[in-house]
Amino acid sequence: MALRDLDGALGQAMIYAVQGGKGLRAFLAIESAALFGIERTAAAPAGAAIEALHAYSLVHDDLPCMDDDDLRRGKPTVHRQWDEATAVLTGDALQALAFNLVLKTVCPAEARVTLALGLSEAAGVRGMVGGQAMDIAAESAALPLDLDQITALQAGKTGALITWSAEAGAIMAQQDPAPLRRYGDCLGLAFQIADDVLDVEGDADAMGKAVGKDDARGKATFVGHLGLDGAKRRAEALVQEACDSLSLYGDAAGNLREAARFVISRRN
Amino acid sequence: MALRDLDGALGQAMIYAVQGGKGLRAFLAIESAALFGIERTAAAPAGAAIEALHAYSLVHDDLPCMDDDDLRRGKPTVHRQWDEATAVLTGDALQALAFNLVLKTVCPAEARVTLALGLSEAAGVRGMVGGQAMDIAAESAALPLDLDQITALQAGKTGALITWSAEAGAIMAQQDPAPLRRYGDCLGLAFQIADDVLDVEGDADAMGKAVGKDDARGKATFVGHLGLDGAKRRAEALVQEACDSLSLYGDAAGNLREAARFVISRRN
Repeated sequence: MALRDLDGALGQAMIYAVQGGKGLRAFLAIESAALFGIERTAAAPAGAAIEALHAYSLVHDDLPCMDDDDLRRGKPTVHRQWDEATAVLTGDALQALAFNLVLKTVCPAEARVTLALGLSEAAGVRGMVGGQAMDIAAESAALPLDLDQITALQAGKTGALITWSAEAGAIMAQQDPAPLRRYGDCLGLAFQIADDVLDVEGDADAMGKAVGKDDARGKATFVGHLGLDGAKRRAEALVQEACDSLSLYGDAAGNLREAARFVISRRN
Repeated sequence: MALRDLDGALGQAMIYAVQGGKGLRAFLAIESAALFGIERTAAAPAGAAIEALHAYSLVHDDLPCMDDDDLRRGKPTVHRQWDEATAVLTGDALQALAFNLVLKTVCPAEARVTLALGLSEAAGVRGMVGGQAMDIAAESAALPLDLDQITALQAGKTGALITWSAEAGAIMAQQDPAPLRRYGDCLGLAFQIADDVLDVEGDADAMGKAVGKDDARGKATFVGHLGLDGAKRRAEALVQEACDSLSLYGDAAGNLREAARFVISRRN
C-alpha cells in the first residue's frame, strides 16, 4: 500500500463536499467581475474559493457536536459517509484550499491581498464562525433572540460570505465596492429569510436536507417573528433594494438582478 | 444579555489556545526575516499567523474523534475546558485569523501573496492536514509504516509549517528561499525525531501533555525504527545539516543555529 493511498479518503471527501450545491456564491463573484469587464476564467479562482469555503462550513456545521445532520444536498453528510475525523479534516483542508484559490485570482497583487483579507474576515470570528458560535450558544441557552439579534447573527453566519462574493468583482477591478456591498447585504438577508420560509414550507426531497428543524428545536427565526407572510414581504423588499443598488451598472447587472429574484423563488 | 456575549467563549478559547507554546515557529519567521534586515515589527504578523495556524491544528488534533487528548501545554484541551463545538469553531476561527495575519505582514503585496499561498499549501491537503489524515489512517489500519513512510508523513504533518516559518524571511525580502528551506526541512525532521524521543524519555509534567502514547498505541515511530540512540544520532546529524545550510549568512544566523540545537536538547 502506497503512503499516498492512506489519505485517499480525504481527497474524495473534499470533492464530495463541494459537489451538488447551487453555486450561488461563485455565480455572484463571477458576475460581479463581469460588470468590470473581467473574464470568467480570471474570476473563476475566486468563485471556486468561496464555494470551497462554503462547503467547509457545511461539513463542520453538520458534525454531531454542532447541528448533527445526516443529510446535505441530498446525500449523507461527510461524517456519515466517512467518519467524524475525516469530516473535521475535510473542512480544515477546504478552508486552506479556499485561501489558496482566492490568491490565484487573476488580478493585481494588491487586489489579491484585499480579496483574501476580506475572505478571512468574512470567514472568521467576526463573520461566519462568529455567527455560528452565536447560533449554537443561543440554541443551547434556549435564548429567545429578537429580530435585531437574529439579523446580526445571520449577517455573520451567512451574510458575510454572500457580501464578499458580491463585491469580489469590484475588488478585483480595484473599483468602489460600495454598491455591490449593499446589494450583497440585502441579498444575504433575503436569502436567510427565504431559508426560514423554506424550513416551514419546503419539503425535504427538494431541499436535500431535513426541514422543520427550527420549529422542532423552538429556534427563533424570521418567520417566528414576522409570520410567514410578513417574512415573505420582507424578503421581497430586500430583493427590491438589492436590485435598486445595482442601478449604476444598468443592463449589465441583469444576471445579478435575476439571481436576487431567484433567491426568494427557489425551492431548495 | 447582549448578542455579542453569546460568542464570548469563542474569543476566550482562541486566546487560551494560542497561549503557552514555545513560539518556535514565530521565532523562526522573525529570525529569518532579520537575516534580510527586516524589522521584528514588520515580520511579527507572519509570526503571529504561523502560531495561530499551529494552535488551530493542535485544538483539532486533540478532539475526541482525532487523538482524543485531555491535556495540552499543561492545561485542559479546548474541548475539555469548553466543549467539542467550541473546539471545532475555535480551530476554524484560528485558521481564518492566520490567513488574516499573514496578509498583514509588512512587505510588498507580491511577497504577501507568496507568503499566504505558501501557508495555504503548508496547511492543506498536501501539507499538515494531509499528514494528519495519513497518520490517523495508518493508526486506524494498524499499518506498520517504514522509515520512508514515517518521514513523508511527518514532512507533511509538522515539517511543512516549520519549513514555511524558516523561509518566510526570504520570501518577505523577495530573495532566494532555498538555503532556508533546506534548514527548515532538516530542522522539522529533527524536531519530530526529538518528539518521538521525548515521548519515550520525557515526563508528562515537563511536556505539558501525555507521554508514552505512541508506544501504548503500537504506533510506528522513528525511535521504533532507529532505536533510542540511533534516533538521537539521526536528529543530531540533521541539526548539523540545518546549521551548515546557513553558512552563507555567517554570524547573522547565530540565533537560527541555536534554535536548531534547542530543538534536540529541549525537555518539552
